[in-house]
Amino acid sequence: MAMKLEDVDTRCIAEDSLPWLPLAPYAELVSVKLLSADPLRGEIILVLRAPPGIELPRHRTSGSTTIYTVQGRWKYREHDWVAGPGSLVIEPASACNTLLTLADGTDDVTMLLLVSGDVQLLDSDDRVVTVENWRTAVSRYLDYCHANEIEPRNLTQGGRTDDCRETRGAA
Amino acid sequence: MAMKLEDVDTRCIAEDSLPWLPLAPYAELVSVKLLSADPLRGEIILVLRAPPGIELPRHRTSGSTTIYTVQGRWKYREHDWVAGPGSLVIEPASACNTLLTLADGTDDVTMLLLVSGDVQLLDSDDRVVTVENWRTAVSRYLDYCHANEIEPRNLTQGGRTDDCRETRGAA
Amino acid sequence: MAMKLEDVDTRCIAEDSLPWLPLAPYAELVSVKLLSADPLRGEIILVLRAPPGIELPRHRTSGSTTIYTVQGRWKYREHDWVAGPGSLVIEPASACNTLLTLADGTDDVTMLLLVSGDVQLLDSDDRVVTVENWRTAVSRYLDYCHANEIEPRNLTQGGRTDDCRETRGAA
Amino acid sequence: MAMKLEDVDTRCIAEDSLPWLPLAPYAELVSVKLLSADPLRGEIILVLRAPPGIELPRHRTSGSTTIYTVQGRWKYREHDWVAGPGSLVIEPASACNTLLTLADGTDDVTMLLLVSGDVQLLDSDDRVVTVENWRTAVSRYLDYCHANEIEPRNLTQGGRTDDCRETRGAA
Repeated sequence: MAMKLEDVDTRCIAEDSLPWLPLAPYAELVSVKLLSADPLRGEIILVLRAPPGIELPRHRTSGSTTIYTVQGRWKYREHDWVAGPGSLVIEPASACNTLLTLADGTDDVTMLLLVSGDVQLLDSDDRVVTVENWRTAVSRYLDYCHANEIEPRNLTQGGRTDDCRETRGAA
Repeated sequence: MAMKLEDVDTRCIAEDSLPWLPLAPYAELVSVKLLSADPLRGEIILVLRAPPGIELPRHRTSGSTTIYTVQGRWKYREHDWVAGPGSLVIEPASACNTLLTLADGTDDVTMLLLVSGDVQLLDSDDRVVTVENWRTAVSRYLDYCHANEIEPRNLTQGGRTDDCRETRGAA
Repeated sequence: MAMKLEDVDTRCIAEDSLPWLPLAPYAELVSVKLLSADPLRGEIILVLRAPPGIELPRHRTSGSTTIYTVQGRWKYREHDWVAGPGSLVIEPASACNTLLTLADGTDDVTMLLLVSGDVQLLDSDDRVVTVENWRTAVSRYLDYCHANEIEPRNLTQGGRTDDCRETRGAA
Repeated sequence: MAMKLEDVDTRCIAEDSLPWLPLAPYAELVSVKLLSADPLRGEIILVLRAPPGIELPRHRTSGSTTIYTVQGRWKYREHDWVAGPGSLVIEPASACNTLLTLADGTDDVTMLLLVSGDVQLLDSDDRVVTVENWRTAVSRYLDYCHANEIEPRNLTQGGRTDDCRETRGAA
């Protein structure tokens, strides 16, 4: 396959073109929307949605994670701060944290995550129970599309297909 | 300076602890909130806020930019799609684009940007007029803090200071 | 801690100022020289040295790995190519591979590795036996320095200390 | 284009399958071998070769650069250290430096560079004379292949084609 110079374009992934995926085995608690995956670097960008007042299993990251909170308030059990709308959390490689959504809201907590590498979910003895990464995220999306007869989109970075609604006479 | 093993911690940057900075010379149009800067890699994370119905100068990126839209609708003149709330735009290195906020809203357009390298603002002949990067972003923040007698926070990655509001009896 | 603008400088890490570290439990086979560690992103840069004609345990990467071969010839059991001096190998996230150094040389194989995230060493049933990452690499270096009464250097990125030999009348 | 799960593989780029490219307008001084390009992130990996005792124009980086010296000795005019074989230089975003190869050797200086974003070459008043980045690097390679009737290889990351010499009975 020969190389061409002009093969990457600015693209937009419209949020409403993608499904919410139940995050089994925590499907009662959390759903995610995968926005982008980079299979070479093992990086994913996704939105996570959880109701107020829940706790997820403790997790460990192999790379760094960047979290922007869109709505609601949450914290890590291991830290004193509370992250609210507009805040930025930066979680370094090898960090172990336990996510709690605060019980003081009525709306879901919604956060944008940029995740690098594996996220290992741990039991109470810090043994790895399950692993989430670009591969499980893409599998979950493809399985959902297959089960619901949706044509899956190419969410891998470097893709060329624009998806957002076309605009006529914008601005 | 000797190396220690335990010197990076998960941290939270509370949005309300940081000022909106007018983006001179486009201060009538746009203000930004700098959330994080990585001086080694030249990467910044910021929120950009603009009213509906404006157009910014065409720009060129030296690295890639990732944009998550929090509120409002906008587009690039060079593309057909419109980015609305929850959408993700990925702009590759060396891309040239012109930002327009749509005139169909009453609220400001708000977007989270992860920018790598230089953003060159261009005139109508595609000559570089001014450059934005981690250094101009940090300077703008420090100058604003100095002029308004605010103690600047350390927004560089790897910093150790947590900032979010402390929580009592969370969850 | 306040932020200052001018705190990262170009730096040089001289190879001869750093020790070769036996890679226990494969110390008979392999030694490594840690050149740089980024605790926030979980990335390390190191040189690996191994004699000809050996095989290491199969490993899995959580992020991507980039390998530049300085000397000698090696391959992955899972692939047909052989990497010789000057070649570049790019190993994506979630790859599983088994390193063999070719038996056709007399010199050690030497390679530069840029590793992101965890490297999991696997047994014959692909169960994780041990994990290597920025934290184990830095620990190994600090332990070695302590045992050999060497003052450890700060190898974390963003560090400010230059180390290379000073030059007088260079060029 | 639909997304498939299994589309990135570990690959090897053999150094001897790629040409040395004269770095015009410094072609008398320097040649480069492009090993890899990431058009999305604007990152390139290349080998640079220069004779002893020369000086290149001062340059400015927009992202960070990592340099591993394979052979020979060189320095930056702006720093006291000298980089020799096996050393690692990390150059942060927005750094300005002037490369000198030392006159004490007979062999060429050879270094591996991982470059992110634009490298701006400056005149004596620090005005930008020319810019090097993933796009100029790929153009130079494609032009060379076209002029010399070589079929260009796909050096972009995420490519699927292995290239190294096949091995028979390795190890």
